[in-house]
Amino acid sequence: MAEVEPLRVLPGRRLEVLDQTLLPSEERYVHLAGIEAVCEAIRSLRVRGAPLLGLIGAYGMAVAASTDASGPELRAAAEAIIATRPTAADLAKGVHRALAVAGEAAGDPAGALWKFASEFARQRAVEDRAMAALGASLLRPGDAVLTHCNTGALATGGIGTALGVIRAAHEAGVLSHCYATETRPLLQGARLTMWELMKLGIPATLLPDTAAATLIASGRVQAVITGADRIAANGDTANKVGTYGLALAAARHGIPFLIVAPSTTFDPACPDGSAIPIEFRAGDEVGGFAGVRWSPAGGGAFNPAFDVTPGALITAIVSERGIARPPYGDSIAALGIAPEGRRTP
Amino acid sequence: MAEVEPLRVLPGRRLEVLDQTLLPSEERYVHLAGIEAVCEAIRSLRVRGAPLLGLIGAYGMAVAASTDASGPELRAAAEAIIATRPTAADLAKGVHRALAVAGEAAGDPAGALWKFASEFARQRAVEDRAMAALGASLLRPGDAVLTHCNTGALATGGIGTALGVIRAAHEAGVLSHCYATETRPLLQGARLTMWELMKLGIPATLLPDTAAATLIASGRVQAVITGADRIAANGDTANKVGTYGLALAAARHGIPFLIVAPSTTFDPACPDGSAIPIEFRAGDEVGGFAGVRWSPAGGGAFNPAFDVTPGALITAIVSERGIARPPYGDSIAALGIAPEGRRTP
Repeated sequence: MAEVEPLRVLPGRRLEVLDQTLLPSEERYVHLAGIEAVCEAIRSLRVRGAPLLGLIGAYGMAVAASTDASGPELRAAAEAIIATRPTAADLAKGVHRALAVAGEAAGDPAGALWKFASEFARQRAVEDRAMAALGASLLRPGDAVLTHCNTGALATGGIGTALGVIRAAHEAGVLSHCYATETRPLLQGARLTMWELMKLGIPATLLPDTAAATLIASGRVQAVITGADRIAANGDTANKVGTYGLALAAARHGIPFLIVAPSTTFDPACPDGSAIPIEFRAGDEVGGFAGVRWSPAGGGAFNPAFDVTPGALITAIVSERGIARPPYGDSIAALGIAPEGRRTP
Repeated sequence: MAEVEPLRVLPGRRLEVLDQTLLPSEERYVHLAGIEAVCEAIRSLRVRGAPLLGLIGAYGMAVAASTDASGPELRAAAEAIIATRPTAADLAKGVHRALAVAGEAAGDPAGALWKFASEFARQRAVEDRAMAALGASLLRPGDAVLTHCNTGALATGGIGTALGVIRAAHEAGVLSHCYATETRPLLQGARLTMWELMKLGIPATLLPDTAAATLIASGRVQAVITGADRIAANGDTANKVGTYGLALAAARHGIPFLIVAPSTTFDPACPDGSAIPIEFRAGDEVGGFAGVRWSPAGGGAFNPAFDVTPGALITAIVSERGIARPPYGDSIAALGIAPEGRRTP
């Protein structure tokens, strides 16, 4: 059980999410009473993290069905939820799986959806533990690692993907230190990852994104470990913007660059990274934070939420089904991952 | 003449610097009445930028001499000023040149130092124009460029180094667009470079440091141009932290990575980058800005002010004496640069 519950269901099917935009200064839960609230919470990043978005997609459909479980209403809800974060493969899959469950439910679609979401959450926690154990096996005793963005309990609802590996390595006594990037513009590393690392008692150091390449050049870290938002059939991986630069530095200095993501994050329907849609976010996220502006008014901004790291730069991709290694076309297929994240026969 | 005066001398030998920590929201000049105020202004980055630090080193010695021009006092002042920013080659050189002037001055060392500093400033402006013209010649019509940190008038007292090239290219109608990184942790790109670009009417876009690699991968920029804080004999270059990551991305995507710096920034006494001292700054610059904290209290921070880009990744180094190209040992020597920045015979 994670020390942090990013999502909880209180009696009376009351769905609440921990408002991550307020961390680390405040822990406040927000009640998602309807589909509008669900979409707003996703769009404004109160709830974020690729695998957790899969859960919120499923729970969001349960919330929608509790109001109106008719087919047209549920399809409209599904479209609205998916449209909030177009790059996030898990979100769309969580919603689609929920839609299928509702379509097959006899009599009580809302009940079936709440049950499905709850079982999905349990399964996610089990998958995180499996990934963590596999990923930790790739580290050597005494290794220090660098991670980016937030991929812990706050991102998955389990113990996390990349941060789950780091936690498992710490628990096994293998990890010496974890370095975390700030992760501009939304600072998930500084706000969320450092908070989780300190809660878990893992020795941790924060750095500006600008210092990552020289940190790697200095020999202080022996691996870079990140999560993923979408993985194409050839291993090209979309993840939080900044990941690609870390992969370039890791490759230059010959240290492993590891991706950790559940099988739902793989999208074999995308042949390569160029087919992954990249979300561009509002320009005012750049040049300021939390109401403080540090750039002059009126300038333009380039603000992609994600970048794409070519599979060739990725040493290994760890999923709950096993570890894929280059060349990824075959090794990903060998994990039994087919379109829609279903296991191939 | 630059639209912005980062340093000015008012009647009565009153040295004032524009407090760059308050930009872009406020333009306020600070009077540097004595050596303590000079050191504080450098340490707290009210005045910053490698070439401008050379000028402030010279003017700071003039301020010191106006109080007490004795040899021991001037040597103590020189040590105090140099100790404020140990990586900055220009600062130490400006101070050492001033010390030499004072040693040779007959009768009125303070007067000689004020005159020297003023002539030094005039020469800096001429050098900037020369570098700008040389650097702009390396761009092709329609090029968009990416720059890092602040290297404009605010950094040099002239029109700037890298930003001087960008300005000259804009004036020549060659430049299509300038992208500027935020430059965490002190955000000189967001605060200062965007302010200068908008003042100059240059089409400009701000990006988080994390987005630089994907910007380059997207083909939106045709060159990366930065300044330098110290250049070793083999071309290895210390510059604002984050520069090295930009150089890796530029090399990966085959676009030019250009360094623009006056000859005083070269340090032939440093054989390579490993001999360049790197300043580590206070950890509280990371995880927050301007009094706003976004990381939990008590975490450690990795906060080097500079990183080192290997000469092999640098397409060309532009100085006021000409353009050096790899291999740099010979091409830098051919510019006539010897230890202490003096022209070789």
